[in-house]
Amino acid sequence: MHDLDALFFPRSIAVIGASDRPLTIGHRIVSNLLDNGFTGPVYPINPRAAPILGLTSYPSITEVPETVDLAHVIVRNTLVAGVLEDCAARGVKVAIVNTSGFAETGEHGAALERELVAIGRRTGLRLFGPNCQGVMNTDPAVSLYSNFTFARMTPGRISMVCQGGGVAEVINNSFGMAGAGQRMYASNGNACDISIPEIIAYYGADQGTGVVVVHLESIADPAEFLERVRPVAATTPVLALKSGTTPEGARAVSSHTGGLMAGDTVTDVLFDSCGVLRFATIGELCEAAQAFAAQPVPRGPAVGMVTNAGSPAIIVTDEAVTAGLEVPDLGPEARAFLAERLQAIASVNNPIDMMATASGEEFSVSLQALVDEPSVDAVVVCFMTPFFVDTAGIARAIEHHAARTDKTLLAVAMTDPDGKPEWRDTVDRVRAAGVPVYYLPEAAARVLHHMDRFRRLRDREEDTPPELDVDRAAAETVIRSAGDGFLALHEVGAVLDAYGIPLVPEARGADHQALIAAAGELGYPVTLKAEAPTLVHKTEAGAVVCDLRDEQDLRHALHDLGERLGGHDGLGFVVQPHLAGGVEVIIGGARAPGLGSTVMFGLGGIHVELHRDVVFKLAPIGRSAAGQMLGSIAAAPLLDACRGREAIDRAALADVLVRVSLLLADLPQIAELDLNPVIAFPDGRRTAAVDARIRIERS
Amino acid sequence: MHDLDALFFPRSIAVIGASDRPLTIGHRIVSNLLDNGFTGPVYPINPRAAPILGLTSYPSITEVPETVDLAHVIVRNTLVAGVLEDCAARGVKVAIVNTSGFAETGEHGAALERELVAIGRRTGLRLFGPNCQGVMNTDPAVSLYSNFTFARMTPGRISMVCQGGGVAEVINNSFGMAGAGQRMYASNGNACDISIPEIIAYYGADQGTGVVVVHLESIADPAEFLERVRPVAATTPVLALKSGTTPEGARAVSSHTGGLMAGDTVTDVLFDSCGVLRFATIGELCEAAQAFAAQPVPRGPAVGMVTNAGSPAIIVTDEAVTAGLEVPDLGPEARAFLAERLQAIASVNNPIDMMATASGEEFSVSLQALVDEPSVDAVVVCFMTPFFVDTAGIARAIEHHAARTDKTLLAVAMTDPDGKPEWRDTVDRVRAAGVPVYYLPEAAARVLHHMDRFRRLRDREEDTPPELDVDRAAAETVIRSAGDGFLALHEVGAVLDAYGIPLVPEARGADHQALIAAAGELGYPVTLKAEAPTLVHKTEAGAVVCDLRDEQDLRHALHDLGERLGGHDGLGFVVQPHLAGGVEVIIGGARAPGLGSTVMFGLGGIHVELHRDVVFKLAPIGRSAAGQMLGSIAAAPLLDACRGREAIDRAALADVLVRVSLLLADLPQIAELDLNPVIAFPDGRRTAAVDARIRIERS
Repeated sequence: MHDLDALFFPRSIAVIGASDRPLTIGHRIVSNLLDNGFTGPVYPINPRAAPILGLTSYPSITEVPETVDLAHVIVRNTLVAGVLEDCAARGVKVAIVNTSGFAETGEHGAALERELVAIGRRTGLRLFGPNCQGVMNTDPAVSLYSNFTFARMTPGRISMVCQGGGVAEVINNSFGMAGAGQRMYASNGNACDISIPEIIAYYGADQGTGVVVVHLESIADPAEFLERVRPVAATTPVLALKSGTTPEGARAVSSHTGGLMAGDTVTDVLFDSCGVLRFATIGELCEAAQAFAAQPVPRGPAVGMVTNAGSPAIIVTDEAVTAGLEVPDLGPEARAFLAERLQAIASVNNPIDMMATASGEEFSVSLQALVDEPSVDAVVVCFMTPFFVDTAGIARAIEHHAARTDKTLLAVAMTDPDGKPEWRDTVDRVRAAGVPVYYLPEAAARVLHHMDRFRRLRDREEDTPPELDVDRAAAETVIRSAGDGFLALHEVGAVLDAYGIPLVPEARGADHQALIAAAGELGYPVTLKAEAPTLVHKTEAGAVVCDLRDEQDLRHALHDLGERLGGHDGLGFVVQPHLAGGVEVIIGGARAPGLGSTVMFGLGGIHVELHRDVVFKLAPIGRSAAGQMLGSIAAAPLLDACRGREAIDRAALADVLVRVSLLLADLPQIAELDLNPVIAFPDGRRTAAVDARIRIERS
Repeated sequence: MHDLDALFFPRSIAVIGASDRPLTIGHRIVSNLLDNGFTGPVYPINPRAAPILGLTSYPSITEVPETVDLAHVIVRNTLVAGVLEDCAARGVKVAIVNTSGFAETGEHGAALERELVAIGRRTGLRLFGPNCQGVMNTDPAVSLYSNFTFARMTPGRISMVCQGGGVAEVINNSFGMAGAGQRMYASNGNACDISIPEIIAYYGADQGTGVVVVHLESIADPAEFLERVRPVAATTPVLALKSGTTPEGARAVSSHTGGLMAGDTVTDVLFDSCGVLRFATIGELCEAAQAFAAQPVPRGPAVGMVTNAGSPAIIVTDEAVTAGLEVPDLGPEARAFLAERLQAIASVNNPIDMMATASGEEFSVSLQALVDEPSVDAVVVCFMTPFFVDTAGIARAIEHHAARTDKTLLAVAMTDPDGKPEWRDTVDRVRAAGVPVYYLPEAAARVLHHMDRFRRLRDREEDTPPELDVDRAAAETVIRSAGDGFLALHEVGAVLDAYGIPLVPEARGADHQALIAAAGELGYPVTLKAEAPTLVHKTEAGAVVCDLRDEQDLRHALHDLGERLGGHDGLGFVVQPHLAGGVEVIIGGARAPGLGSTVMFGLGGIHVELHRDVVFKLAPIGRSAAGQMLGSIAAAPLLDACRGREAIDRAALADVLVRVSLLLADLPQIAELDLNPVIAFPDGRRTAAVDARIRIERS
């Protein structure tokens, strides 16, 4: 038996702090359990032990004569610890601590919370909360509404877990108002013991769950999240909303929860590694969850449509195409099939645009053509409910095909269900056939867009970091002997060399003659850079001279920089080969607290600065993920053949990314690493970093 | 009296083709008029002249004894013309032709439609439709529901006009379901006479209209739209959804309407010129319209929030900040005011985060702080409706402040109105106080984002194209003597010169000695380009050599290009000064059918190609609009001081844009113009086009 079975499938429940006063949480939980038909006994616990809602009360949990699986704890915060000891003594398996006044209120509350955790650890009692709402489970085996809120719950396949009680209820009500069927619900507040990833893993193992919906404000333990959620997302869609994405939002987070705020990029990297589909808004999350719960994920990006009103189909088309989906022409067979059976005035291409008078039979014909059409992966049926049409016939047509096709089927019912009973019936029938019903045409396109994102996430190539011939010990030795802060240049060189990361050769010094001699060995043309502790922005200071073609050019440049920048103490120079004909890229990485390290790729210069055109992954990565990174930035076409230059050797560049990611993963003392720029060439053997910085910080 | 008064404020209505069979349009229009309490007489017209819904029928419009302002025409398409003649004879002012089978069905229908238009022109009878739904007006003077659909209409300040009947009804029902108050409605189908811009202008003059909502699939006459809509948008927010934005969407358009499809960029340019706020989805349009109708536009971008649930406020914050709004800290006075009056556990910054137990009085205190806070422009009040709180008190607090503040006030009521009657009452009270109520927290942020877009559109500097000393006659002479197609190089030079548009000097030819002599005059360094009819992609072919520093360099380069490219027939060369230290930009323009010409600006190379980072305006523009264009692309910071280069002279660059826009406006024979690249310099006198193409096409 799983630990959390006592939470989601309890055989009996005690409510400690139950009350006979209606406007209290202690009363509301008892009444919710009874009103929603909980299948086991409910034991109100109250010092006065008066009957509550007709149930026998007990003065203490220790006096309940029967076994208790689950206990709600609603007593004052300072009394919770004592009650938990009693629960443990009585053999309670899980306690839902609704009481607030713990870590969310500051240090004093945090100390109280640590005490609860200690009791749990010592006794084996599992804790849910504190400062939380509770759980629900529509499974008829329990019919569990163990929560003090009010929401309409329709049984279904969506299971959700949320950190913030407010957003949890907004999502919960959204499903209720949309008539979307739910399976389990958990809003676990401070989550001092039973964690969100633990609950996600529980949902993942539940046969009745078709999609998992998650809301997070902070990720307390990213490594736990990765470990527990990745296996779930491999088989069950996990849809997540992570708020606090902006600095201002994050400020609100830190005032609202006691959790650790991981940066937003880290969240993206984590979700990407897990295969979790991220959403930006509650609305899109709820729309999509209904489709994931009820329909298969489309096999491809092609959308087919049938409608009895042309203009809404145009909006679906616009939204779909803008989101990268396709609205293909129908094949000749489908067109002929339709032309024979529909009114002459209908448009027998995609979207199939029938007149407002189209009958249920005509809808059925069009749906048949779309589910039979090989070029279509998902089908959207849009309909208005004009008074002169038998809309029940449209519902029957959808029911018929929904039961027979394995393609994704969504409906857009552009009708006011409160307008007429038959419109409500039509919508209800379509929904009962397992076809999600949206009101706005654009919603169907958005949902298909998110399903397509999921398909691509799920179907991406498996990525395994390769075994590389690196000298980890050598790199560790360098870092061990260095202090915190930036590594010296020769140390950077040694670390990169140990991992086979190419760095452009260079000569440094202040002596002009020695530099000129070194340039002869490096080979002309060369680039000359001045450096000094006070010279921060080299390019802006005119301290970089490129493409010096011979000794005379170099001599002139040394003289000129010496004159202009002589005022900088400790002025020295670097000579490097001038690398023309390549593409400037940036490769970097940074530690992601609690998770490991990220590796980053972007194109140099303005792409990163102005267009934020970069991509991060969790290190280490393999060649497949590295290839994905190269292809996923907007500026990726610049790596192809371009303006007379051959295509960049992507394999060689990917190899650098893979090696950098392994270095970051192997040596967690590296807080930040920047190879900026790396010049990538069509001849991959020339691809190399021109400048590199590594910052060490032992945590 | 305005022509359209008879459409929106008719004193009497005839329904030609009225029927006593319930499932017909001819019956439905009569019943809708009666059910919604139309204040004037309704005359059913039917050959059999049987009473319909208790009203006396007439066999023909000519036999109605009283004056008829407005007539619905529902007879077969081939009979419409005859009916319209009768209407005109009887003195009907406007006819709504619901009948379909006109231009939307092909050439035969288009011919029938032209006949109707001719009758209208000849007789003065104004026509609405054909192939349309009708109009509504909630003004109690008429209570007009002259339409065959079903929708709940609540009186209010939103007036809408739509082209596509389907989308019209989706928007209409959205307002109805949201309880948003509407004023007038028009869905005019093929719009053969009374046009959408004409209706927008009518709404603009209506005192009861607070916001105009428009849906378009095509813009039949962009110049008419510009002329009629611009004055309206200067005082009344005009919110527009234009579908068919993608090629696939546009395909659906052309199969759906007989209108002329203007490209999507042209729509953006047109809306920008008019001051019309464009929307991409029905949902966002409807959300925003409710706020524009009920609340003032915020004075600035700063949002203040109060909530009884922390997590939803984080979502509002994320969405608002992502959209460019601000969520400022509250000032010390506000914080002190709140700290004194709220529970100690409340967060007294922005968002003001109170506990779920917060009372109406506490909401009132927080709202007071936000409306008094100088740094806040718009206020969002978010609330859940926990069972232990008197939610009517929250509604009272909002009512109180809504009546007193001139700041924008929006509510997010995270409650299921169908859950409990008191929740429905709470939502209804807040809405009745003129405060739009949204369910999803993100919606409030989106609405404020659109209001902020409107504020910036409305408050932008007035733009007047300046009087310039240009030689229009000279340019016209060149163009008149040229044929259609690309102008020859010397013609391009002459046209640009006539408008004071600087072009880099150059020397052309095949003779090496002459080119070398010319280079001496231009001054080194120079750039050499090979050209030949078969040399299309010069850079890719290696036909451009930059930064030739002296005669020897040039001689080498001429020899090298001659060797490599000698296979191209008619090989010649261009020598130009090498322009180092500037920024490459693109300036262009194209004819916008029916509207005039657009002028375009972007940064050169990858910014345009990969990031589509360009901006268009309707020509001609003044210096203010030109400055806006320079600042509105993502890559605009590259025009500032950057990497050791001083800031580009923006005034000089703007002057080129202004001159190009005037050239395009003055000479509509120019179908396309490209200055690519223009090199812009810190010293504006050096800013000049390097390459220019002008294509002439007489339309």
